[in-house]
Amino acid sequence: MGSRKNTMKKIKLALISVYDKNNLKFLIKNLNKFKIKLISSGGTYKEIKKMGFECEEVSKFTNSSEILSGRVKTLHPKIHAGILSERKLKSHKNDLKKNNYNEIDLVVANFYPFENILVRTKNHKKIINNIDIGGPTMVRAAAKNYSNVTVITNLSQYESLIENMKQNKGGTSLDFRKKVALEAFGETAYYESLIYNYFNSISSSKFPKKIVFGLNRFEKLRYGENPHQDGAIYTSSGNLGLSKLNGKQLSYNNYSDVFAALQISKNFPKKRGTVIVKHGNPCGASIHQNNNESFTLAYNTDPLSAFGGIISCNFKINKKLALKLNKIFFEVIIGCGFDKDALSILRRKKNLRLIDSKNHKLSNKNNFISNMDFALTQEPDVKDFKYTDFKIVSKVRPNRRTFENLIFAFNICRFVKSNGIVLINENSTVGIGSGQPSRLDSCEIAIKKMKKFQNTFNKEILAASDAFFPFVDGVEKLVQNGVTGIIQPSGSIRDKEIINFANKTGTVLVFSKTRHFKH
Amino acid sequence: MGSRKNTMKKIKLALISVYDKNNLKFLIKNLNKFKIKLISSGGTYKEIKKMGFECEEVSKFTNSSEILSGRVKTLHPKIHAGILSERKLKSHKNDLKKNNYNEIDLVVANFYPFENILVRTKNHKKIINNIDIGGPTMVRAAAKNYSNVTVITNLSQYESLIENMKQNKGGTSLDFRKKVALEAFGETAYYESLIYNYFNSISSSKFPKKIVFGLNRFEKLRYGENPHQDGAIYTSSGNLGLSKLNGKQLSYNNYSDVFAALQISKNFPKKRGTVIVKHGNPCGASIHQNNNESFTLAYNTDPLSAFGGIISCNFKINKKLALKLNKIFFEVIIGCGFDKDALSILRRKKNLRLIDSKNHKLSNKNNFISNMDFALTQEPDVKDFKYTDFKIVSKVRPNRRTFENLIFAFNICRFVKSNGIVLINENSTVGIGSGQPSRLDSCEIAIKKMKKFQNTFNKEILAASDAFFPFVDGVEKLVQNGVTGIIQPSGSIRDKEIINFANKTGTVLVFSKTRHFKH
Repeated sequence: MGSRKNTMKKIKLALISVYDKNNLKFLIKNLNKFKIKLISSGGTYKEIKKMGFECEEVSKFTNSSEILSGRVKTLHPKIHAGILSERKLKSHKNDLKKNNYNEIDLVVANFYPFENILVRTKNHKKIINNIDIGGPTMVRAAAKNYSNVTVITNLSQYESLIENMKQNKGGTSLDFRKKVALEAFGETAYYESLIYNYFNSISSSKFPKKIVFGLNRFEKLRYGENPHQDGAIYTSSGNLGLSKLNGKQLSYNNYSDVFAALQISKNFPKKRGTVIVKHGNPCGASIHQNNNESFTLAYNTDPLSAFGGIISCNFKINKKLALKLNKIFFEVIIGCGFDKDALSILRRKKNLRLIDSKNHKLSNKNNFISNMDFALTQEPDVKDFKYTDFKIVSKVRPNRRTFENLIFAFNICRFVKSNGIVLINENSTVGIGSGQPSRLDSCEIAIKKMKKFQNTFNKEILAASDAFFPFVDGVEKLVQNGVTGIIQPSGSIRDKEIINFANKTGTVLVFSKTRHFKH
Repeated sequence: MGSRKNTMKKIKLALISVYDKNNLKFLIKNLNKFKIKLISSGGTYKEIKKMGFECEEVSKFTNSSEILSGRVKTLHPKIHAGILSERKLKSHKNDLKKNNYNEIDLVVANFYPFENILVRTKNHKKIINNIDIGGPTMVRAAAKNYSNVTVITNLSQYESLIENMKQNKGGTSLDFRKKVALEAFGETAYYESLIYNYFNSISSSKFPKKIVFGLNRFEKLRYGENPHQDGAIYTSSGNLGLSKLNGKQLSYNNYSDVFAALQISKNFPKKRGTVIVKHGNPCGASIHQNNNESFTLAYNTDPLSAFGGIISCNFKINKKLALKLNKIFFEVIIGCGFDKDALSILRRKKNLRLIDSKNHKLSNKNNFISNMDFALTQEPDVKDFKYTDFKIVSKVRPNRRTFENLIFAFNICRFVKSNGIVLINENSTVGIGSGQPSRLDSCEIAIKKMKKFQNTFNKEILAASDAFFPFVDGVEKLVQNGVTGIIQPSGSIRDKEIINFANKTGTVLVFSKTRHFKH
C-alpha cells in the first residue's frame, strides 16, 4: 500500500479534539507506541490525561490563554500554520522556525452531531451555541493540506490509520491521506448543510436561493431500476422507519413502490385499508370495516396486475390474512405490525420481504427530481380533503355516503399516474386506468378492467378523474358503462357541456377545487 | 423595521475581505460615512487604500506577521475573539479587554467561486490551493454570532445593509442580521459541498457514504405539478443550456417533459429526429432523412395525444416546418436552433414557449428522487446500444435494416413508462403502449393506437418491449396484428415458449442483454 515516494515523513505531532470519545484509548495507546506528541484541549485533554498519557493543552502550546468560555482555542496561527504549512517549501519552513511554530502532522477531530442537538432541543439559542467554529476549521485546513497532513474525522478510521502507519513506518500513504481528506470534507459539508437547513427551517422561505442538502447512505441497492444501473438509498435521519422482518434486500423499484404504497395508505382511516402497487401505480385499494375483506376487495380489482406487486395493509396482519397472502406472489408485504402466527406463516417464503411500517412517518417536505445538474422541486401533494373542497354541480345531489365514496375515489386517483381514472364501489376500487396521454383512453382502460374482473350488477359505480375532462367523450363513456357519479377538477372550456350531460343522464357530478396530476 | 430593542449598537469596526470587488467603493464610501474603522488584508486592503480610504492591515491589527504566503492571516484569536464575543457577557468583555482585543461588529467577505476554479483548471494542485480556509471561518463565526455581528457575504446585500444601518443609527436590526446569517451559512454550506463533490468526482465512489449537494435557484415556477403546489427549479451550473426565445414561463410539468424529450432526442442521430412528449411519455418519435418528414411521422403516431404536448426537433426548425407547427397546439417547441423566418412565424403566438436546445448537454450523473428525508438514487440509463448488445434467437434472421429498426424501437421503448411497448415502421413509431401494470395491456394499447391512426398495409411493423414477456400472450397479440419482428430483454421462464412461437410464425426475435424499466 502506498509507494515509498508517496509516504509522508513520520508523524510527530498530533492535535486531538473529539466529541465522541469511544475508542479514544485504542487510538491514543497506539499513537503513543509511535512516540507521537499530543496536543489537545477541553474534554479530550482531560480524557487523555485520565488514561495516563502525556498531552499538552492547546492553550499552553499556543501560549495563548483560553478565552470567551472556550469559544476561541484552536483559532490561532500556531495551530493553523502548523497544519497548513507546505512541508516542501523552504519559505514555509522558515516562517515556522522564525515564529517557533511546529508542524502538526495529524489532526483527529469529530464534532458534536448537529442532528442530535436538533433532536434534543428546540431552543434556538442553545442550537446556535452548539455550532462548532474551531473544529471544522482545523479539519478543513488539514484536509486541504492532505499532501502533508493526515486528518481523521471518524472513529471508523482509527484502525486503518494505525494499520497504515504500521505499514509506513509511522507515516501514512498519500492514498490514505487523500481518502480521509475526502471523508473530512464530507463531514464538514454535511455539518454545514445541517446548520443551513436548520436556519431555513425557521425562516419562511420554501425555495431559498440556494439549497444544500446532505444525506447518509442507508444501503447500497442490489441495482437501480435495471440491473445495469447501480443504485443506493440515502436518508437524513439514518433510518426510514421501516423494519424489514424477512426476505431479500429491497431493490430500487421495491423502495419506489413501497413509498408509493405508504403514501396511499396514509390517506386511509387508521387500521382500515389495503392497497396494492405495481410500477408505482395502485392496481387495487379498499377500505372496509373488516380488515381482511379490504384485502380481498383491493386484490379483486385486478388480480393479474397484483401478481408480483407490493401490498400495504395499514393494520396488523393476522393469521387468517397471512394464509391468504401466502397463496399469492407479492414482492413485498407491508403491515402495520404482524401477528406472531402471521409472521411465522409468511416467513416460510425465505425471499418474501416483510416490512413493518408502524414507525414510518410520511414526510411533508418538498419533493425533488434531480440529476445533480438540475433539480425540479415542489411541495408535495398531501393536502387532506374536506367536504368544502368540493362543489356539487349536478342537479342530482349525492347522499352523504356517495359523497364520501367519491372523495375516497379522488384520494386514490391523485396517486395514479396521469391521466388517471379510478372507478369504485363502496370504498373499493373496481377499475383503474393510468398513464395515458389521452383521458378517454384511461377511461376505457378502467372500464375494461372493471368488466374483466367485476360483477357490477346493481352496484353503485363512481368515478374519479385527476384532472378535468377536456371533452364530454370520457364522461359519456363512463356513464354508458354504468357510472352514476363522477368527481373531477373543473377548468375545461366544456365544463358546462359536461354538466348538461350529467343532468341529462341523472349523473352526480362533483367538482374539486384542485387538480392532481402525478407523473 | 427592527424594533429598538433588537437593534445592535452602532457598528464601529469592520473586517472586509472580498474576492469580488464590484461595488466595493459604494460599500466603503458608505461605511466611511458612519465613521467605521476598517481592517483588511491582501487585495481588498490595497483596493481600499487605492480608493483613498483609511484601512488597517490585518497583520498590523493582530500584530502577527502574515506567514506561509498568506495562508494564515485571519486565523488569529484577536480576529475570532473580536467576532465571537457575546457582547452581553461581562466575562467576554473582560477577556477582550485583558488581551487588548476589540469587538468586530461587521464582517464582509466573499470567496473566490469554487465553480470557477473547476472550470478554469483541471490541475488538482491548483484546485486544492484555492480552497479557502480563513474566509469561511470568519463568515461562520460571524453568522453564528449574528445576535451581535452583521455578516455580509454577497454584493447584493450591500444596499440593504446601508439602508438598514441608516434606519438603525449605524447599527443593524436583529431581523436583518438573522437573514444575512442564514445566507452566510448558505454560502459556506454550498462552498463546502462543491469541494466535497470535487473530491468525490476524482475518487471512484459512485455512492459515497454521505452525499451533500448544493444547487442555485434558477427560477421559481408558476406552480408545481398542480396549481396548489409551489415549485422551483435549481441548477448547479447556473443555467440549463436552454434558451427560451418566446412564450410564457415554463411550468413544472413543462420542464419535466422538456427533459424527457431531450433525453430521447439525444439518442437520435444528429439533426435527424423529432419526438413528441406528453405526461413524461413519448407519444410519437421518428428519424428521417427529411427533417420535416420526421415531424409528420412522429405527429401521425397519435395526433390526439400530441395535442398540448411538447415537441423536440434535434435539427434547426425552418419556415416550412414552422408553418405546419403553427397549426397545432403545443405547449413547448424545442429546436436545435430556429430559422429567422421560422421564429417570426412561431412568435406570433405570444404564449407559445420556444426553446433553443443547441447548448444543452445531457447529464450522465446519477438520478435522484427525494423528499429530503430520503433519496433513492441510481446511475442513469444512458448506455448506447451496439449490435453486440443483442442476440438473434429466432430462426428467421433480420436483415441489417430490420435490425437497425429494432434497435431504434428499443431506444424509444426505454423512455416509455413501464410497462412499455413500442411499435414502429421504418424508424418511426406507429403505436405506443405505456404505464400499464400488465404487459399484455400495453400491447393492446399500442395496437389500438396503430389501428386508429395508421394504414399499415404492406408495411414492416416491428415491436420493442422494455422488459421480458412473462407469457406468450403479448407476443401472440402482436404477431396476430401484423408485427413481424420483436426486440425484448430475455429472462422469462417462458422464453423458450416465446422463441418457439416466433419460429412457428416466422417472426424475427431479438433478445437484449439489458432490461429498461422506467417509472
